[in-house]
Amino acid sequence: MTGYQRPIRWGMVGGGKQGFIGAVHRIAARIDNHFVLAAGSFSSKAERNLESAAELGIDPARTYASFTEMAQAEARRDDGIEAVSITTPNHLHYPIAKAFLEEGIHVICEKPVTATLAEAQALARIVAASGRLFILTHNYSGYPLVRHAREMIAAGAIGDIRVVQVEYAQDWLTEPVERSGSSGAAWRTDPSRSGAGGAIGDIGTHAFHLAGFVTGMKPISLLAELTSFVEGRALDDNASILLRYANGASGHLWASQVAVGNENALRLRVYGTKGGIEWYQEEPNKLGHTPFGQPKNLITRGSAVAGPAAIRTTRLPAGHPEGYLEAFATIYTEAALAIRARQSDATQLPAAAYPSISDGVQGLEFIEASIASSKANGQWVSLSSITL
Amino acid sequence: MTGYQRPIRWGMVGGGKQGFIGAVHRIAARIDNHFVLAAGSFSSKAERNLESAAELGIDPARTYASFTEMAQAEARRDDGIEAVSITTPNHLHYPIAKAFLEEGIHVICEKPVTATLAEAQALARIVAASGRLFILTHNYSGYPLVRHAREMIAAGAIGDIRVVQVEYAQDWLTEPVERSGSSGAAWRTDPSRSGAGGAIGDIGTHAFHLAGFVTGMKPISLLAELTSFVEGRALDDNASILLRYANGASGHLWASQVAVGNENALRLRVYGTKGGIEWYQEEPNKLGHTPFGQPKNLITRGSAVAGPAAIRTTRLPAGHPEGYLEAFATIYTEAALAIRARQSDATQLPAAAYPSISDGVQGLEFIEASIASSKANGQWVSLSSITL
Amino acid sequence: MTGYQRPIRWGMVGGGKQGFIGAVHRIAARIDNHFVLAAGSFSSKAERNLESAAELGIDPARTYASFTEMAQAEARRDDGIEAVSITTPNHLHYPIAKAFLEEGIHVICEKPVTATLAEAQALARIVAASGRLFILTHNYSGYPLVRHAREMIAAGAIGDIRVVQVEYAQDWLTEPVERSGSSGAAWRTDPSRSGAGGAIGDIGTHAFHLAGFVTGMKPISLLAELTSFVEGRALDDNASILLRYANGASGHLWASQVAVGNENALRLRVYGTKGGIEWYQEEPNKLGHTPFGQPKNLITRGSAVAGPAAIRTTRLPAGHPEGYLEAFATIYTEAALAIRARQSDATQLPAAAYPSISDGVQGLEFIEASIASSKANGQWVSLSSITL
Amino acid sequence: MTGYQRPIRWGMVGGGKQGFIGAVHRIAARIDNHFVLAAGSFSSKAERNLESAAELGIDPARTYASFTEMAQAEARRDDGIEAVSITTPNHLHYPIAKAFLEEGIHVICEKPVTATLAEAQALARIVAASGRLFILTHNYSGYPLVRHAREMIAAGAIGDIRVVQVEYAQDWLTEPVERSGSSGAAWRTDPSRSGAGGAIGDIGTHAFHLAGFVTGMKPISLLAELTSFVEGRALDDNASILLRYANGASGHLWASQVAVGNENALRLRVYGTKGGIEWYQEEPNKLGHTPFGQPKNLITRGSAVAGPAAIRTTRLPAGHPEGYLEAFATIYTEAALAIRARQSDATQLPAAAYPSISDGVQGLEFIEASIASSKANGQWVSLSSITL
Repeated sequence: MTGYQRPIRWGMVGGGKQGFIGAVHRIAARIDNHFVLAAGSFSSKAERNLESAAELGIDPARTYASFTEMAQAEARRDDGIEAVSITTPNHLHYPIAKAFLEEGIHVICEKPVTATLAEAQALARIVAASGRLFILTHNYSGYPLVRHAREMIAAGAIGDIRVVQVEYAQDWLTEPVERSGSSGAAWRTDPSRSGAGGAIGDIGTHAFHLAGFVTGMKPISLLAELTSFVEGRALDDNASILLRYANGASGHLWASQVAVGNENALRLRVYGTKGGIEWYQEEPNKLGHTPFGQPKNLITRGSAVAGPAAIRTTRLPAGHPEGYLEAFATIYTEAALAIRARQSDATQLPAAAYPSISDGVQGLEFIEASIASSKANGQWVSLSSITL
Repeated sequence: MTGYQRPIRWGMVGGGKQGFIGAVHRIAARIDNHFVLAAGSFSSKAERNLESAAELGIDPARTYASFTEMAQAEARRDDGIEAVSITTPNHLHYPIAKAFLEEGIHVICEKPVTATLAEAQALARIVAASGRLFILTHNYSGYPLVRHAREMIAAGAIGDIRVVQVEYAQDWLTEPVERSGSSGAAWRTDPSRSGAGGAIGDIGTHAFHLAGFVTGMKPISLLAELTSFVEGRALDDNASILLRYANGASGHLWASQVAVGNENALRLRVYGTKGGIEWYQEEPNKLGHTPFGQPKNLITRGSAVAGPAAIRTTRLPAGHPEGYLEAFATIYTEAALAIRARQSDATQLPAAAYPSISDGVQGLEFIEASIASSKANGQWVSLSSITL
Repeated sequence: MTGYQRPIRWGMVGGGKQGFIGAVHRIAARIDNHFVLAAGSFSSKAERNLESAAELGIDPARTYASFTEMAQAEARRDDGIEAVSITTPNHLHYPIAKAFLEEGIHVICEKPVTATLAEAQALARIVAASGRLFILTHNYSGYPLVRHAREMIAAGAIGDIRVVQVEYAQDWLTEPVERSGSSGAAWRTDPSRSGAGGAIGDIGTHAFHLAGFVTGMKPISLLAELTSFVEGRALDDNASILLRYANGASGHLWASQVAVGNENALRLRVYGTKGGIEWYQEEPNKLGHTPFGQPKNLITRGSAVAGPAAIRTTRLPAGHPEGYLEAFATIYTEAALAIRARQSDATQLPAAAYPSISDGVQGLEFIEASIASSKANGQWVSLSSITL
Repeated sequence: MTGYQRPIRWGMVGGGKQGFIGAVHRIAARIDNHFVLAAGSFSSKAERNLESAAELGIDPARTYASFTEMAQAEARRDDGIEAVSITTPNHLHYPIAKAFLEEGIHVICEKPVTATLAEAQALARIVAASGRLFILTHNYSGYPLVRHAREMIAAGAIGDIRVVQVEYAQDWLTEPVERSGSSGAAWRTDPSRSGAGGAIGDIGTHAFHLAGFVTGMKPISLLAELTSFVEGRALDDNASILLRYANGASGHLWASQVAVGNENALRLRVYGTKGGIEWYQEEPNKLGHTPFGQPKNLITRGSAVAGPAAIRTTRLPAGHPEGYLEAFATIYTEAALAIRARQSDATQLPAAAYPSISDGVQGLEFIEASIASSKANGQWVSLSSITL
């Protein structure tokens, strides 16, 4: 890389003082220094919005009461934001994204991409028409060893894939905290704000994306058992889903927010004709790889065997742990590279550098197919038929 | 314990020179010194039978060409065997067990208990009529921390169970070794000798039993996806099975013999309203327990917190690993205690000291229901309806 | 925290394009947004200095060929830097720190603090006279669970300390890479740039600091065996050091850069009359704590049991790994808080919020005592006598 | 192996009802079926001796009040024991071993071999004169992967050894349990029964032997810091010892019985010019091996990469954990093979099949040198000079 690159002017919708995800986005955006926060509409509550903006040093003139106003006003400014991040509850993703894209502003958006598949499909059309970029923050795909696993599998390191085991277990919704003050729990368990998926939307989509990202394969159909264990909870807090792939591979996806002892236990295991790989988000700096008949290798981030995809996304030498924020920052950095490439038409990005709107649509297909299957007492539901 | 106890006179059917499981039974029987091997029919091949007997120091007069002959001859001897172990391929379990039980000889038998559910049910009636004991070697239930987990859960340590995740992954059938000289692979992949289940019979039944043993719950229905990944293999080598429990709990069982990098990876995780437990067979001397909201505890075998069920089955202080053979030996020791208790009517055994014929019947229900479900493209199949 | 806080104007000496530590400092300074890079002298090589500054977007007018010029020029500016970071080879720390402190600029400095104990002691006097802050980047003390361990021990969680085992093992100097193009290896193995310590200076001082930080105790004497395994290497690449503490505790510190298979394996174990704690830098988000007679607890960063010191330095919920950069950022953030407190006299900082010049002096005592002991064929050398 | 082999007639001195080590020896002797217990003097307390013998089914005529009587009486019998195991407190090893060897009976003996180096050297002469075998139960050398590590290192897998880190940590003597009823603690902390070494004798000798066994190197000198942390304890309960090897390698040995949270934490790490290996007794079925510049391999017991030394001592397939008792049984089996080879002059045993009297002498050299060094405030003490 040569020469200084001006940070991209950037705004946020959502991500105010409370909740942790807004701060995560801001740190992620700062780590590699590609963005400067210049505008925001941080909360639908006016006071909290102003307080948040003040703490963040945002010019009051660029602190907006509504996202509509923000999109229009920023689009009119010579120094208006070039990109916006959306970190609101799910049901607002669609109108906000639409507003900014239609004003010509690139969008970085939390997952699941929208509240419904229909919205996701509509958004895909809007993105296509806008000529702007849409980056979905499936941040776990930013881990260097996740990228390395993808690269290994694409190169045939484990042969033809037979079995995919992916799981994402948490325990923070074990008790009905949505009724005792957790605002994050409250909106995630409320269908009007979260959409039709509970655990499958909030974390299941991450697991679904991760498996697809690493294997390079999407299931053709699924069969789901969704459960709400906490009395009175309207959305699923546990999901167990069988997956079928076009090549005959068999998969299982488990997402739970009531699995006591699991904090953020996203784990992927893929087995093929020639080998197996295993990766665990809570220990993200190592990747297990077993060539059939040989000992398991522990591949470490930053080590001599890391390939181009890992090296591209690695900041530190081996043994110096990178974590969640660095993986998240990689999504932001890929976004920045893509935005600049779009602005200059100069740079060729690697495939799958960042999750896109099509990943978002697939995530909503996954959610809606899972719900349909579960309601039908466990019927196999085709994923492609839902898309159409 | 007081006074010397004469070892029980004991014989074997199967378990000759080749294959590892015969030697496992003999070591298991010796570890606590409750059995003395006195007779056998070690192989259906005459020469191998004689060689095996000679190596084991068995009196040629008590080396039998057939199990029928053995059962009858031993029953007639004043010093005849009191118990027999059956370690043949599955299809022979039923006739052999029947022969010995009907001669009044206690039976220790490998799993799955028979080749079909009908046989298992018939055998259950034979056991009941015989007044003799039937011990099924679901050896993993002999691990002290498995017993401790059962005891903890029964005492309410994790509250009401919500989620059960059990898996048993191996990789030794990744390639078609049944066609390149592995006799163990050959009969296990041959429906005429293994029964209708492949991986679900050979290892799935272990996983199913372990989950039931520890949770104290049996599923009421299941939904299965069985696959044979290796071309030309007649039986499943991968099974992914959803489980429903009467209390609303949701489970998943995965059994695979093509998961590269897994040697004998039996793993159980149970999550309830108040806590979670995790146990892994390859590191059997520790048990993870997380009370909700507290750090994970690593309970170790032999440590101060081990309860009566673990202490009863522990031979060594903490930090001195016990393994597979000791767990297996515990099944033999429980068998010996039960046989002596039956002989003397003197001792009260703890519940579930050893797996019994009813566990065997449930194992076959599991196999047949899984096959039925998978053939029906993943229908929920009631386990109790199958039993009747 | 209330209200926006203007980032501190900040510069760097060293940290140019090559080498990883300059980038680490910049990311660490950005993560919590307390610093803005405004000036620098990034390399003694003019061309590399200019290139680095250009890439970083530094005003050419504030890109300096020498640290002397930089200190003087920045001190004269109204918008001059308030703090500077020093990331050069060790032998330059002293003159650079002196130059900036004497111009009234706060200093953040890499370890070991100077090339000799005499310099460190002189620098301590300069710091005291300057009224400015001196922050030493013993970054491992920034990990939340390191802070939690310190807090637990101070509160008596493990009773009186008896045994301290600390080790820092790497393998990157296994072969003579200093002679095949690694500039980082070249200066670290060159006494004229690194000072008298090799592994003990570069990583041993980190281990020494960590043990002192967590236990709250400094050894009173030590006995060392230093070795240079790679032929022709002038400085130690392996050090094994016995430690004695005033309360009778016994310790051992091992530092190695030739321990194949260790990447950045800093590990601390402390045992007392009532319990033990264990922490490992490569898996920094968990802390083992065993109260005597009870199971080991795995305390996780961000979990409900984390105390104030951990909470203060934690950015993410449990299960979302923080890593090396976040721990490093915590040192920068503590520096910023301290600088602002010094500027405003308003805030009370917690004790040991950041490593200081006295830690630096102790580090050099450790280095020189170790060398003295090793040269004397393993004599116990008093640490306090060296200080005087 | 061909043909049945009559079990060796075998007796025990010590190993009565209380204490765990007697039972360990009996299980170890049974596992591979090479020994039959025929005689014993299980306790110096008459009543406990008789009770123990009765429980074990020993003929009262071969239950002896004293080892002297036992040695003489068994030597006179046509069916007298061929081998005896000594599991008494340390101070009795020498006279007992002497009595049996002089009667022509092979000896299997617990460690440390005697209470003093002088006794060990005298015993070595007695062994040589007797023409009988002396097997020392450094049982940890029986683990298959320990043997594999030895074989790998001998074959050059890690190049020339530079650094040896061996440690053996326990916590059961954290409190003065020797004064509250633990007979095992009482004699181990009593110099008149344990000899001059506390932790260094009881567990330090195991660590010392393991390091020597695996590396194939003995240190030429050592420097020790011994501590008794528990008030009133006469012997060391923590030892930290520097080691120097003839080839310039540097080592450290730590033994502790007050390290809270450690159960039986024997761990060996060896680093050479080309690689490193790591093994941990509490997870004995895996061995870490890192070739320099490549990922760490986890070699598992029973896997395809295990070499002849591991295969020879492995009973189970990979993933089926073997533990402490199996490793101990391997020592007994090697003893049986050696006894039969001696009886028949027919078999060639592998080198280092079992620990011998020379290992015992080296263990006492280690103990006495450590004590001498520690008393001299940490002087380097030559190991060879002590031997002479």
